[in-house]
Amino acid sequence: MTGEQQAAPIALDLGPQAALDESLSAYFDKCTEKLGFVPNVLRAYAFDAVKLKAFIDMVDNLMLAESGLTKLEREMIAVAVSAVNHCHYCLAAHGAAVRQRSGDPVMGELIAQNYRAADLPGRQKAMLDFAVKLTEAPDKIEEADRQALRDAGFSDRDIWDIAAVAGFFNMSNRIAAATDMRPNREYHFMMREDTSIET
Amino acid sequence: MTGEQQAAPIALDLGPQAALDESLSAYFDKCTEKLGFVPNVLRAYAFDAVKLKAFIDMVDNLMLAESGLTKLEREMIAVAVSAVNHCHYCLAAHGAAVRQRSGDPVMGELIAQNYRAADLPGRQKAMLDFAVKLTEAPDKIEEADRQALRDAGFSDRDIWDIAAVAGFFNMSNRIAAATDMRPNREYHFMMREDTSIET
Amino acid sequence: MTGEQQAAPIALDLGPQAALDESLSAYFDKCTEKLGFVPNVLRAYAFDAVKLKAFIDMVDNLMLAESGLTKLEREMIAVAVSAVNHCHYCLAAHGAAVRQRSGDPVMGELIAQNYRAADLPGRQKAMLDFAVKLTEAPDKIEEADRQALRDAGFSDRDIWDIAAVAGFFNMSNRIAAATDMRPNREYHFMMREDTSIET
Amino acid sequence: MTGEQQAAPIALDLGPQAALDESLSAYFDKCTEKLGFVPNVLRAYAFDAVKLKAFIDMVDNLMLAESGLTKLEREMIAVAVSAVNHCHYCLAAHGAAVRQRSGDPVMGELIAQNYRAADLPGRQKAMLDFAVKLTEAPDKIEEADRQALRDAGFSDRDIWDIAAVAGFFNMSNRIAAATDMRPNREYHFMMREDTSIET
Amino acid sequence: MTGEQQAAPIALDLGPQAALDESLSAYFDKCTEKLGFVPNVLRAYAFDAVKLKAFIDMVDNLMLAESGLTKLEREMIAVAVSAVNHCHYCLAAHGAAVRQRSGDPVMGELIAQNYRAADLPGRQKAMLDFAVKLTEAPDKIEEADRQALRDAGFSDRDIWDIAAVAGFFNMSNRIAAATDMRPNREYHFMMREDTSIET
Amino acid sequence: MTGEQQAAPIALDLGPQAALDESLSAYFDKCTEKLGFVPNVLRAYAFDAVKLKAFIDMVDNLMLAESGLTKLEREMIAVAVSAVNHCHYCLAAHGAAVRQRSGDPVMGELIAQNYRAADLPGRQKAMLDFAVKLTEAPDKIEEADRQALRDAGFSDRDIWDIAAVAGFFNMSNRIAAATDMRPNREYHFMMREDTSIET
Repeated sequence: MTGEQQAAPIALDLGPQAALDESLSAYFDKCTEKLGFVPNVLRAYAFDAVKLKAFIDMVDNLMLAESGLTKLEREMIAVAVSAVNHCHYCLAAHGAAVRQRSGDPVMGELIAQNYRAADLPGRQKAMLDFAVKLTEAPDKIEEADRQALRDAGFSDRDIWDIAAVAGFFNMSNRIAAATDMRPNREYHFMMREDTSIET
Repeated sequence: MTGEQQAAPIALDLGPQAALDESLSAYFDKCTEKLGFVPNVLRAYAFDAVKLKAFIDMVDNLMLAESGLTKLEREMIAVAVSAVNHCHYCLAAHGAAVRQRSGDPVMGELIAQNYRAADLPGRQKAMLDFAVKLTEAPDKIEEADRQALRDAGFSDRDIWDIAAVAGFFNMSNRIAAATDMRPNREYHFMMREDTSIET
Repeated sequence: MTGEQQAAPIALDLGPQAALDESLSAYFDKCTEKLGFVPNVLRAYAFDAVKLKAFIDMVDNLMLAESGLTKLEREMIAVAVSAVNHCHYCLAAHGAAVRQRSGDPVMGELIAQNYRAADLPGRQKAMLDFAVKLTEAPDKIEEADRQALRDAGFSDRDIWDIAAVAGFFNMSNRIAAATDMRPNREYHFMMREDTSIET
Repeated sequence: MTGEQQAAPIALDLGPQAALDESLSAYFDKCTEKLGFVPNVLRAYAFDAVKLKAFIDMVDNLMLAESGLTKLEREMIAVAVSAVNHCHYCLAAHGAAVRQRSGDPVMGELIAQNYRAADLPGRQKAMLDFAVKLTEAPDKIEEADRQALRDAGFSDRDIWDIAAVAGFFNMSNRIAAATDMRPNREYHFMMREDTSIET
Repeated sequence: MTGEQQAAPIALDLGPQAALDESLSAYFDKCTEKLGFVPNVLRAYAFDAVKLKAFIDMVDNLMLAESGLTKLEREMIAVAVSAVNHCHYCLAAHGAAVRQRSGDPVMGELIAQNYRAADLPGRQKAMLDFAVKLTEAPDKIEEADRQALRDAGFSDRDIWDIAAVAGFFNMSNRIAAATDMRPNREYHFMMREDTSIET
Repeated sequence: MTGEQQAAPIALDLGPQAALDESLSAYFDKCTEKLGFVPNVLRAYAFDAVKLKAFIDMVDNLMLAESGLTKLEREMIAVAVSAVNHCHYCLAAHGAAVRQRSGDPVMGELIAQNYRAADLPGRQKAMLDFAVKLTEAPDKIEEADRQALRDAGFSDRDIWDIAAVAGFFNMSNRIAAATDMRPNREYHFMMREDTSIET
């Protein structure tokens, strides 16, 4: 781990990292092993082990558990919501995730810039239309919006997952904004090579 | 528990309630004991025990754990955020909580209607100004906004909690809107008596 | 009349109450008789008898005169408009009126929080959709919006009344906001008992 | 009166003009005498003599009664508010009034287009800043906004009048929008000559 | 040329007018000949002959070159866009152009105030709906918006021109706002006579 | 040049490329030489040589001519404006330009995501604050906004350039949105290597 990674992850001074139990320590180790670093959002939460654990439990369930949505689709929602909220942290971290899960660096850019330009299949377009309306004007969601998702092939269980992921990033975007959360530098460089070029 | 309480808590059909382990069952029992009912948000999440547990762990930590913010202050943030988002469920449930924790039915109404009219002490006014800006324009939060909280007497640790609670209700408001979540009827009637009248 | 009711109704010092003629005095007496108090909006206007009379003449005609809209429907418009504008005074006073005219405390809350969650009949949903669009984006009302009201069963005469009531509360909300108008405390406690419980 | 003036004043069919009592008839006659026509807003209201009278009583008091604001200043508020709301009727009718009361056709255009470009004296700039904020975001008016008016030399009584006029045009703009109210053609041609040119 | 016309055209001090080559000098002369003055936007740009020429080349091509849109239609777009942005300079200058090109002073006012009230033919209504959406929410333009123009009879080449004119005035409105650009006084008085009155 | 680059640059069918004169042909050749491709915005304009030339003359003057702003600063404005408007084309093309001119891939991302998180020097922060306000609310720019730029060290001549560049991208963003302009694929891959890593 370089010195740079140890820069403060947010603009608040929350004191030293809490003592992490074995399971949380293992989780951090696994991040370092897989990503090369501990994501700064986890380092930010680490001043309080209970809060850290609650955050990890929720986000891992949302993004990785069994669902009618693919993992890529859940990352697409994360990025489309974060684009509305102009969230630097989440666009960097989850933009990288879209690039990686799609294997397509351009797709990651497109969702971060404007998903409407991405020429998405109807199912994914409907999914992001809902997530973005829910972000911009939650009070105006009506039954017709839910029905549009059903018409695009989503089950009620899927609609819950779309809502839960879109809701979650409306939370995370705001915690990142409130604390000036800074993405790990590495995110910017992940999966940038042009995979369409045959060698 | 009346038949009415058993009406569907949301407009999505997510199938039957999952099997709840002992700890979750006890939690539901405690709700019924203390409130007279299980809050519909929990009934909504109960189709999946893992999601239910993650939700409870996070919300209980945020609203009840040790903090520089009083429990009433955290409920005030919940209601001020929900007022911006016009969230029926959260205004009903957390409006009741503000009435109860403040012991003042009028205060609950004020925060739900427009906290700026509530003639709050400077500390609480600054807290809600931050929470509302974070809700309306998260991308425009800057160091000056954090500093205004410090100037009002909040520590960096408190600022985290303000952000975390405001963020959380931006999530919950959207999950409620997306699913047409309906508050338990009882919320509307809690703590409505005028406590200023001496008998 | 208690001392509390005599607190200043607004944040402006407009001098003493004007001399009220017999008809206005009788009007105030009737308020006290029926409500137990003179609404603070009338006390605010009472610095000038001509303005007070013009206000009463207009509001009473709008809310009480013969119309294709029921008195409850007119109060629903008042509350839905005031919710958009987050008007503390009007949400308190007309929220109480919706509770009383509907005989349903929950209905009053629903319209104040988000009428879209109220599962209203098509006619009333169309009425409030129009009133809210007229509040949020008056410049974007087009013939199709009027036609939607006709399709929901309203006559042109009814459309006038919907517009006039919605317009009026866009005025009142702003006068209340500009002057920090404070609702009489009593409003918060009116019609809060659960009328669905048989005894 | 030409046939053109008799075109329908609004897009609603409200039936024939009500019987007007002597005082209202005299009022219409006086309009015709002074302006050459009856303003279409009055013709629109004339389906109901009670509504017509209430409207006239309120608007005449607001715009013509004794006040710390000049009649021109009240018309400036009318136009600045109507510019925010893009109200065709009120911009035409009250734009003409600003041109006439100021004796300056350019001033009328400036307020209708963007009062911030009008290089107004501090008092009038503060007055329109308040009126426009009250129009755009009534829920965000705070004591500091009232104080800014006092600092610009306005009394509390003047602040009431600013609020009342700004509020009134937020009502009128919406009634005009809802009914597609059409200004009398004559308004467009009033006071258009360049008065700065000496002959 | 009067002294008044020589007042500073903007609130920035950009130094003396650059030396204009023969073609630009001739252009200014032609303006004076046809309009009686050099439009202040050109005087503003004249501190730099290269910028001035680039501006003239673009605007003249957009507004005067061969197109499926009439010159009046292009001016209508200019005014409708400028109304959204409340641009004093462009409303004055291009409002005059709409009055002149249409030969109808009322039409100029209508587009400047609210084009939705202008009872336009379907083609022009569709054109301005697109231009205004492109102004207010460019990120939300989708294929359906382009198709609506095709359905109204526009070719793809026409759509380019609508976009290019609407885009251009979104630029000009902002340069005018940033520099406090002041329209030549003459614009306010052009084509104000009522041409519908036969003599 | 690959087949992919020859895909349609926009969603409008504007017919074949116009005959380009020697100077425009040379310009296209130079693009291909320096970038490896002709930017799609130029290919889009190439249906009409006059429009193409006017566009190139304006953009090259704005972005490359002598100015008190560095070329990087002008690209930063382009990207900050395009982020507000969520313009896929301009974020891709000018995001790449910021990465290249700064020699810092992370800086390019930061401005595209949220410039407020970029910890910029006061001068550049003030410059982007102005450009973004001019984008979001041009009608609300006042002398104080210009003065803030002067206080940050900008001359009036610099303010013109800030306004002109910000204005230009408000035009380009909208033409790109209206036509569904697609950035050349190559932009996504330019200057992505981490230049801070020493080898």
